[in-house]
Formats: sequence, C-alpha cells, structure tokens
Amino acid sequence: MSFLSHLESVVSQVDGALACSVMGFDGIAVETHHKAPTADLDLSTIWIEYANILTQVKTAAELLKTGAVTELSINSEKVITLMRMVSPEYFLVLALSPTGNYGKGRYVLRMTAPKVKAEL
Amino acid sequence: MSFLSHLESVVSQVDGALACSVMGFDGIAVETHHKAPTADLDLSTIWIEYANILTQVKTAAELLKTGAVTELSINSEKVITLMRMVSPEYFLVLALSPTGNYGKGRYVLRMTAPKVKAEL
Repeated sequence: MSFLSHLESVVSQVDGALACSVMGFDGIAVETHHKAPTADLDLSTIWIEYANILTQVKTAAELLKTGAVTELSINSEKVITLMRMVSPEYFLVLALSPTGNYGKGRYVLRMTAPKVKAEL
Repeated sequence: MSFLSHLESVVSQVDGALACSVMGFDGIAVETHHKAPTADLDLSTIWIEYANILTQVKTAAELLKTGAVTELSINSEKVITLMRMVSPEYFLVLALSPTGNYGKGRYVLRMTAPKVKAEL
C-alpha cells in the first residue's frame, strides 16, 4: 500500500475530511490527498505554518519534560486541523470542516500513523 | 460565581483532570485550580510556553485567513493540554492525565468559556 492509499482511506473514513497529508517537519508534503478543492483555504500554506508550530511544540516538550508530543490540534472557525506524529521526521495532518467528525479523525489518524511509519 | 468556582467545576467534571486555569496571553495565570500536586510536571512553566505557542497560532490564523482560533490541544506522553479561547486577551487551559477524558474536557471547556467571559 502506498502513502496515497492510506491518505485516501483516512479522508474516506472521516466525515467532513477535506484533505490529508504525510509531511516532514520542514513543511514539505511527501504525499497529499485532497477530497475536493478548498477554494477559500490555502491548506498548503496553512500546513507549512503549522509544521513550524509543531516543531516548536516538539522542542518545548524536550525542555518541559512532558514526554514526546503525540498529537497537536488547531481548531479555527473555518478549519479543524489534526496532526499526529509518525516518526521524529514526519507527521500526518488532517484538515476537517468545522462540523467534521473530530473524534473519528483523531482515532483514524492514530490507527494510520503506524501503517505509514512502516512504509517510511 | 468567581473564576475559581468555574475552574473547580471543570476539574471535578472531567475524569483525569489535573488542573485548570484562566490565563492571559502574556502567560500570566489569573486564577488556577489544581486537583492535586503534579510532582513530575511543572504545569506553570509548561503553560507559559503554551501561551506563547497559542499567541503564534492566533497571529498565524490572521495571516492564513482560517478564521479566529477557538481551540488548541497539545498531547504528549505525560500530559494532555486543552486550551480554549475566552476573549482576545484570555483563555482557559486544562491539563489532563494521558488517560483522561479528552472529549469531556473539550466539551466542558466549551461550555465554561462563555461563563468565564461574562465575568471578565
């Protein structure tokens, strides 16, 4: 199974999913699956910024001794964003509409992260 | 009802809650309720760092046109942290044990934020 199949599977399982990607902490997407164009949201740019924030959260976790970061979620009026660590270099990011199924999104990302990791 | 009563109410309603606080974006806690001492976690320091991250997320939201940020969650091996906006200057932060009730925590913060806002 390729990354893309995993990403398509995530998007198809979660109500309100807009797009899912495997990204590096440098903000570069390895693979992305968009359900449909999101005209008013520039997800690529949003995700680059969020990758930067996630990097800071990771660094903070080491200093603050909270244990490794597993998950970050940033919810705003127009988009819910869930991020789940895959490895020290990569993470999964899922964009949902504000009415999307947040709980299911978290669950599916948690189940998918080890499958993606196995293929890295 | 004072802030403290709201914070006590949040902590008592959510399984696994460790502490809850009303904080300013400058990282200064207005009021905090701890359920019990958390010997291995310096929550005050963690929250100052997270307030800084939340400020960056807010600024990014304006640039990225995602609409206002409503919620941020940072989950690590030792602690789950939920943050919910109350006003442009203040937010609620809730620390949970990693096995705490995440969904209930989100719900209770969402219900509590307008009550806290009404008293600011």
